[in-house]
Amino acid sequence: MKALDELVDLLTRLPGIGRKSALRVAWHLLKVDRSYSEALAERIVALKDTIGFCSICGSYSESEPCEVCGSPTRDRSVICVVEQPQDVITIESSREYRGLYHVLGGLISPLDGVGPEKLRIPELMARLRGGEVREVVVATNPTVEGDTTALYLKRALEPAGVSVTRLATGIPVGGDLEYADKLTLARSFRGRVKL
Amino acid sequence: MKALDELVDLLTRLPGIGRKSALRVAWHLLKVDRSYSEALAERIVALKDTIGFCSICGSYSESEPCEVCGSPTRDRSVICVVEQPQDVITIESSREYRGLYHVLGGLISPLDGVGPEKLRIPELMARLRGGEVREVVVATNPTVEGDTTALYLKRALEPAGVSVTRLATGIPVGGDLEYADKLTLARSFRGRVKL
Repeated sequence: MKALDELVDLLTRLPGIGRKSALRVAWHLLKVDRSYSEALAERIVALKDTIGFCSICGSYSESEPCEVCGSPTRDRSVICVVEQPQDVITIESSREYRGLYHVLGGLISPLDGVGPEKLRIPELMARLRGGEVREVVVATNPTVEGDTTALYLKRALEPAGVSVTRLATGIPVGGDLEYADKLTLARSFRGRVKL
Repeated sequence: MKALDELVDLLTRLPGIGRKSALRVAWHLLKVDRSYSEALAERIVALKDTIGFCSICGSYSESEPCEVCGSPTRDRSVICVVEQPQDVITIESSREYRGLYHVLGGLISPLDGVGPEKLRIPELMARLRGGEVREVVVATNPTVEGDTTALYLKRALEPAGVSVTRLATGIPVGGDLEYADKLTLARSFRGRVKL
């Protein structure tokens, strides 16, 4: 059936959705109320119309500036640097952090030809010039590229008198030593804290 | 962000999609080309407009009767009985079966108050009255309800001179004895075949 095959083909292009999942979704859509399908279709198209980027921090936002950058209650002395816009929402959902954000739009990766000049690092430097920011928390993933980017930021920002920190790496809460890989275990030793 | 939250809420209602998967899909939709989002939205709405049910077998179809029921090359002496319309497409994809289909629209389940009269069994009886059908292959799932329905069909159809068969139950191809549950193992013994 053409209508079904076309939908399944489009669905399999979404992340984490294989052919079987796409078929299950299609069967579900065939069964559910028309109002649901219409609402879903409308929201899919509306998403890009209503969500843009904050000109200050570069995260996804429905307003300009975004809610975080425009908030009078956030701590303006700390900026958390992340790779992608969605990382901001992930961190916000933990309700742990009360400072500002800055999205790099990628990570330094010499092998892929991505140098610091291709990221939003000049914009970060410009934000630090006001002198209000005392700490930059680098929240890039603990991968080779994430570590390289963190090190680059440390070298670039510390001369400007800003303290550069990095999220702790270690065994996840509820995790098991037995299943932790060697690198994570090694890092959790190096980063051990006094009780 | 309202537009994001609304989309994620709708996506989590789809089968096999939790909150994290829904968020990943939403991030993806924010990044991809507008033409893709529009095509996806269009196909979601179009699905129900173009796909209906075949009046003969009850499976999903874009034509009336469906391709299988209308085909001159299918074996009209065998009807494969399935629970849901999507089972027809699953079986068709195996390219093993060349007969006709009949969708019951459910399984007999006394606990849920579903008796034979709530399923498309009278329609099946009517199809058998022509005398052309010699075999009914019951392809319901090997569950309590699937087995009950198969047994009911055997008792109802055999007096009419139709042979009623059932799909083989056993260890899946590529499966492992070690991981087979006791019931499957027991059934695979009872259904053992001569080499």
